[in-house]
Amino acid sequence: MTREQLTEKLLDIKREKGWTWAHIAREIGGMSEIPIVGALLGQGKLVKPLARKAAKLFGLTETEERMLNETPYRGASMPPTDPLIYRFYELVMVNGPALKAIIEEEFGDGIMSAIDFDMNIDRLANSRGDRVRIVMSGKFLPYKYYGAAEGIPDYGFKED
Amino acid sequence: MTREQLTEKLLDIKREKGWTWAHIAREIGGMSEIPIVGALLGQGKLVKPLARKAAKLFGLTETEERMLNETPYRGASMPPTDPLIYRFYELVMVNGPALKAIIEEEFGDGIMSAIDFDMNIDRLANSRGDRVRIVMSGKFLPYKYYGAAEGIPDYGFKED
Amino acid sequence: MTREQLTEKLLDIKREKGWTWAHIAREIGGMSEIPIVGALLGQGKLVKPLARKAAKLFGLTETEERMLNETPYRGASMPPTDPLIYRFYELVMVNGPALKAIIEEEFGDGIMSAIDFDMNIDRLANSRGDRVRIVMSGKFLPYKYYGAAEGIPDYGFKED
Amino acid sequence: MTREQLTEKLLDIKREKGWTWAHIAREIGGMSEIPIVGALLGQGKLVKPLARKAAKLFGLTETEERMLNETPYRGASMPPTDPLIYRFYELVMVNGPALKAIIEEEFGDGIMSAIDFDMNIDRLANSRGDRVRIVMSGKFLPYKYYGAAEGIPDYGFKED
Amino acid sequence: MTREQLTEKLLDIKREKGWTWAHIAREIGGMSEIPIVGALLGQGKLVKPLARKAAKLFGLTETEERMLNETPYRGASMPPTDPLIYRFYELVMVNGPALKAIIEEEFGDGIMSAIDFDMNIDRLANSRGDRVRIVMSGKFLPYKYYGAAEGIPDYGFKED
Amino acid sequence: MTREQLTEKLLDIKREKGWTWAHIAREIGGMSEIPIVGALLGQGKLVKPLARKAAKLFGLTETEERMLNETPYRGASMPPTDPLIYRFYELVMVNGPALKAIIEEEFGDGIMSAIDFDMNIDRLANSRGDRVRIVMSGKFLPYKYYGAAEGIPDYGFKED
Amino acid sequence: MTREQLTEKLLDIKREKGWTWAHIAREIGGMSEIPIVGALLGQGKLVKPLARKAAKLFGLTETEERMLNETPYRGASMPPTDPLIYRFYELVMVNGPALKAIIEEEFGDGIMSAIDFDMNIDRLANSRGDRVRIVMSGKFLPYKYYGAAEGIPDYGFKED
Amino acid sequence: MTREQLTEKLLDIKREKGWTWAHIAREIGGMSEIPIVGALLGQGKLVKPLARKAAKLFGLTETEERMLNETPYRGASMPPTDPLIYRFYELVMVNGPALKAIIEEEFGDGIMSAIDFDMNIDRLANSRGDRVRIVMSGKFLPYKYYGAAEGIPDYGFKED
Amino acid sequence: MTREQLTEKLLDIKREKGWTWAHIAREIGGMSEIPIVGALLGQGKLVKPLARKAAKLFGLTETEERMLNETPYRGASMPPTDPLIYRFYELVMVNGPALKAIIEEEFGDGIMSAIDFDMNIDRLANSRGDRVRIVMSGKFLPYKYYGAAEGIPDYGFKED
Amino acid sequence: MTREQLTEKLLDIKREKGWTWAHIAREIGGMSEIPIVGALLGQGKLVKPLARKAAKLFGLTETEERMLNETPYRGASMPPTDPLIYRFYELVMVNGPALKAIIEEEFGDGIMSAIDFDMNIDRLANSRGDRVRIVMSGKFLPYKYYGAAEGIPDYGFKED
Repeated sequence: MTREQLTEKLLDIKREKGWTWAHIAREIGGMSEIPIVGALLGQGKLVKPLARKAAKLFGLTETEERMLNETPYRGASMPPTDPLIYRFYELVMVNGPALKAIIEEEFGDGIMSAIDFDMNIDRLANSRGDRVRIVMSGKFLPYKYYGAAEGIPDYGFKED
Repeated sequence: MTREQLTEKLLDIKREKGWTWAHIAREIGGMSEIPIVGALLGQGKLVKPLARKAAKLFGLTETEERMLNETPYRGASMPPTDPLIYRFYELVMVNGPALKAIIEEEFGDGIMSAIDFDMNIDRLANSRGDRVRIVMSGKFLPYKYYGAAEGIPDYGFKED
Repeated sequence: MTREQLTEKLLDIKREKGWTWAHIAREIGGMSEIPIVGALLGQGKLVKPLARKAAKLFGLTETEERMLNETPYRGASMPPTDPLIYRFYELVMVNGPALKAIIEEEFGDGIMSAIDFDMNIDRLANSRGDRVRIVMSGKFLPYKYYGAAEGIPDYGFKED
Repeated sequence: MTREQLTEKLLDIKREKGWTWAHIAREIGGMSEIPIVGALLGQGKLVKPLARKAAKLFGLTETEERMLNETPYRGASMPPTDPLIYRFYELVMVNGPALKAIIEEEFGDGIMSAIDFDMNIDRLANSRGDRVRIVMSGKFLPYKYYGAAEGIPDYGFKED
Repeated sequence: MTREQLTEKLLDIKREKGWTWAHIAREIGGMSEIPIVGALLGQGKLVKPLARKAAKLFGLTETEERMLNETPYRGASMPPTDPLIYRFYELVMVNGPALKAIIEEEFGDGIMSAIDFDMNIDRLANSRGDRVRIVMSGKFLPYKYYGAAEGIPDYGFKED
Repeated sequence: MTREQLTEKLLDIKREKGWTWAHIAREIGGMSEIPIVGALLGQGKLVKPLARKAAKLFGLTETEERMLNETPYRGASMPPTDPLIYRFYELVMVNGPALKAIIEEEFGDGIMSAIDFDMNIDRLANSRGDRVRIVMSGKFLPYKYYGAAEGIPDYGFKED
Repeated sequence: MTREQLTEKLLDIKREKGWTWAHIAREIGGMSEIPIVGALLGQGKLVKPLARKAAKLFGLTETEERMLNETPYRGASMPPTDPLIYRFYELVMVNGPALKAIIEEEFGDGIMSAIDFDMNIDRLANSRGDRVRIVMSGKFLPYKYYGAAEGIPDYGFKED
Repeated sequence: MTREQLTEKLLDIKREKGWTWAHIAREIGGMSEIPIVGALLGQGKLVKPLARKAAKLFGLTETEERMLNETPYRGASMPPTDPLIYRFYELVMVNGPALKAIIEEEFGDGIMSAIDFDMNIDRLANSRGDRVRIVMSGKFLPYKYYGAAEGIPDYGFKED
Repeated sequence: MTREQLTEKLLDIKREKGWTWAHIAREIGGMSEIPIVGALLGQGKLVKPLARKAAKLFGLTETEERMLNETPYRGASMPPTDPLIYRFYELVMVNGPALKAIIEEEFGDGIMSAIDFDMNIDRLANSRGDRVRIVMSGKFLPYKYYGAAEGIPDYGFKED
Repeated sequence: MTREQLTEKLLDIKREKGWTWAHIAREIGGMSEIPIVGALLGQGKLVKPLARKAAKLFGLTETEERMLNETPYRGASMPPTDPLIYRFYELVMVNGPALKAIIEEEFGDGIMSAIDFDMNIDRLANSRGDRVRIVMSGKFLPYKYYGAAEGIPDYGFKED
């Protein structure tokens, strides 16, 4: 069994039962919707107690439950052809240069981690059309150099 | 003159003067740093009063000032090879499927606009390493169908 | 079951029954042919009452009916190798630069929405060969900037 | 001199003079804005009397005038990274399958010509946001087979 | 059933029976070998009377017969890795620029149609090695402009 | 100097002088238009006496004349974005499978040479629109196997 | 049945029987190992008497035997990820320019045929590590021009 | 001035002076050779005191010195065509799956940081041919989930 | 059976049994974890005694055991979308130029072998977060030239 | 100065002087034509005494001479569009699978080195058309495993 086959099975069950993702996330619990849905779609893992609950909810075999607990091969083919996902891709293309310039000036030479990373999504009511709000924060990781001579600052940090 | 040549000229002046982006954004004013830096890097336009101020600050010709007021051909080549920008690209790859599932369930069949869109970035002090926080919100745009028969709901919105 | 499998099943039934798309669209009703055919080919969803009717017409299971009501992963692989679809692709390549220049000059800095979008297709009789006419309109979406200082115009709109 | 260099020169002059495309198209005249702007951007030719007028307006040399009268190597690199042009590309991806199905059913086996093709663009006032309207028509070109035996219908046309 | 599966089935039967393409084309008749073989390989359709004959010859079901009468999604993945097909691809790469220059000078701004197109292939006996001869002709399609002012020549045709 | 620079220079002179390709080919003579134009566009060489004549006509230096006599790095980037050249590319995609099947059945296992190859192009008057006719012939090259045991036929040729 | 399925079947039998390629080539005979293994892997055909022997050896059906006698769609996806095959690919990248320069100077304007081509591979004992030796020869094919005026040399051959 | 132009200038000076990288790294000092050479080749920055020393050594202007202190747009086009760099790329292709399996089993769900990363290279004398030894270590970064319910383990760490 | 199918079977058994890679590597023994896991994932072979042990452990058929002893088609599709593997890919992109410069200066013109290559991975305890340490060494392979005239040094080695 | 600029300069001088590659290789001497031409075209280095002679022959500056002695960034963009080079590329595609099978069976698990590699090219007179003969040999490099337990054979070598 591949992870894609497990995902397809989960989607089949969700469709048959008429469940929403919100319902599934509530039933599995322990985390918010994004990481749970991501794991069920094959982009992350569920820790053991949650894999346990997911297995119960979906009536999975023990082997399938273990697969949910494994780290999958993450990532999807790019560029995304689906309009909803493409808009995020476009935001990276258009805003990438400014984000790089501003983060490096403010923090130094490094990156915003995509691993030590937190993301929340909610709905913002608005009379001219509700808005999708996404708040994310990632730890700034400065490039490190090990073994610099005395007095040489680490280049990952903002210099005076 | 191409927009790339203007960007290179602006970066040369910034480097010679020893200016920071924060300084430049303050001098031009009127908007926050992201859209100003984006426009100077060739990914957006400056409205006339700001293009005026930028031209004064950088000592540009009138023609260069007008170019800053033009909408450029946006976007950069992908995938990004630079690690800082790549992390954002990776976030889209890994979280795209969950974002699609959750936004469509919550809002209906549509997208988060990348045009009617707002983004702020700030620094989150944290004893285990400061964090980059990005807050963004985009208007939800439901797919529209014009001319549906009476009683047929619009498919862009959440159905009961 | 994947959406591709459902599409293949629908095409098999259409072929067996000898139905035309026009017949199918009339039977399902409620919308014009383009969105109905698009949904059946896996590029859109049918709202519940139409998914209901489609399920009845094609003799689908309840699960299949629900799948028709889900937003699929839209988009197809590009460039299109099929000549009919390629001609549209070519039109974007050849006319894209002029459309960008003219729309931005007339409307300001923004895009024509592909979501709040309407399209009709019909046949234009012509003695030198009938013509395919496509009329489309999309809402102009101006780039927005939230939080501009007083007196700074929004850059998505046409400036004086 | 390459065509790209001529385009850049024309854009430089337009910027210096502060002309709009509407003004340029009016001055050159004889055709609507789309084909004139397309030709000046290097995606088409101007017929001799119009190339003459464009040369006068922009103060071009005779050689440059002749280049405007030449058919350029059309087309741009794809996929378009610019959001305005990308939306048209997306429309082809998402609606391509339905357009193929419907055109072939209505007309037979063939294509909508991208050469014997007409396109107009205008602004549609709308209280909920003005719209970009594009009307296009292309001659239907049926696939031809030369030399079919008697009684065998041509496959480019709709069969009974 | 997909068109690829039908093609595979036809090839299986051809192999079992030990038929040649020449035999198959003769049996189906009505057209020359190229369009018949193309349709059986999934790159074109057979009109109804020919689909009928093909179905009889291959012992197909009515549904399969209908599929042969449908326009398939044409085109194959490129560049071709097969040496025989690659040589044609190479001819386009190497001779494309000269063909463009000569056709445009002789005919005006337009294309040779790949739809209103005829192609024959035969064997040319030659003492130093027989030759493959391909004769093709396509209608010249001039770019059209609808709505030119009086006295402005159409740019698709050769100007004086 | 690169070959691209020489091509650009030749095109500049052609434009200044107002020459046609037909005129240039007549002046250089010795071969038909296709190979001469191809060589001047950087896709072939001119043999010495013709390079001599071309140099005289265009007023080239001796070094430039020698470059015209060199075999260039042939080929252009694919897929072609220009509509005229794309139609030929499409013909390969759509007809490639049938050409392969028919040539192999008629000739055996091999290819039509793109090197020992001849091509002519002319205009076919036609009351419903003139046609571009291209006649090409290439030597059939059978795959060879050297050293087959006695009695084993060469696999490049048609077997009984 | 596709050719890939036949190849997989042949590999399964080879594995079960514990045969080597050398054994298989000896059993089929008539040619050396390279073309036999190539054909069994789906990159060439076996002439009838050899297909006969291969069918006997592997216990194939008559239909499978015929498939072995068909010319397959040759070629594999590139660049090769397998290190052994990649080294050959790299040799083309690194030595291609020198081979082109030297062959054209020695032979004239043409190519080394990949069809009228012979290749042998053997082991070269060497105290510092045995070597793989590959000897290949291909007929030089000069570019031909048919119809040159009298006295104009053919450009495929070396000029004085 | 672009970073590529600065790199080219530095290489020109290095070549004229006949310096080795070892010499340059010693002169600039403060770090080992890899990060210094990387920065001079445009893949990293030099902290201010080192940029100062590099400027002195190479006789750079103050503006060039500042550019050396800027974080460049990192990364190079892939796949690498150069054999030396390709071997590292191949190592990732061939060993990637095993590294993923082993790191995830040993550490949990996360990555080896390419930012908080250290690398040393040295020469290993060996009678059968000296060896290149590369020692690298990167901080393990566990995927984090913020806001898990009580008792739910963090999924980035190894579970019991 | 393909190698991918065997890999999937091995992963299914591992999951059912609840084995770790460490356990599997210990059971098979004879080599360290990296080459064993690599072989089981289809990127290498197991020598006969180890394939024997693996077959026993997993309960494989004799044919499957033989497949484990075969060299697979190595390599995976690139760029890797999985974050863990991507970080290694990024290291090649960012450090490739410096590695090339330093290795060539130290060793001469050649490469670090990816075949005569050794790699070990271990965990480095660290109070600020444990680290992944990878130590690798590959034989330096100098480019060779056979047949240089007397007194001409071999170019693969460092020259004085 | 880049290596491409040096190559262009060398080709300009070669053309002006009317030299052949054979003449240049004879003048520089010490090695055969392939490595000398390869180095001058930017795909290799010349050792110091040969770089010295090349500099004298071409009248280069000392800096240019040093550049000839540097290892360039090898490799060219693929797939090659030039027919002569493409034929070699095709040979890898078509014969790659057989070469892999046969080399691995004869030698074990490893590769033919592209570094410890020798290649000669000559002309083979033949009454049916002269042939290009290429003889190449590369050292077989077995995959190595360091640290195997006693009695475990090295997997790079042929097992009994």
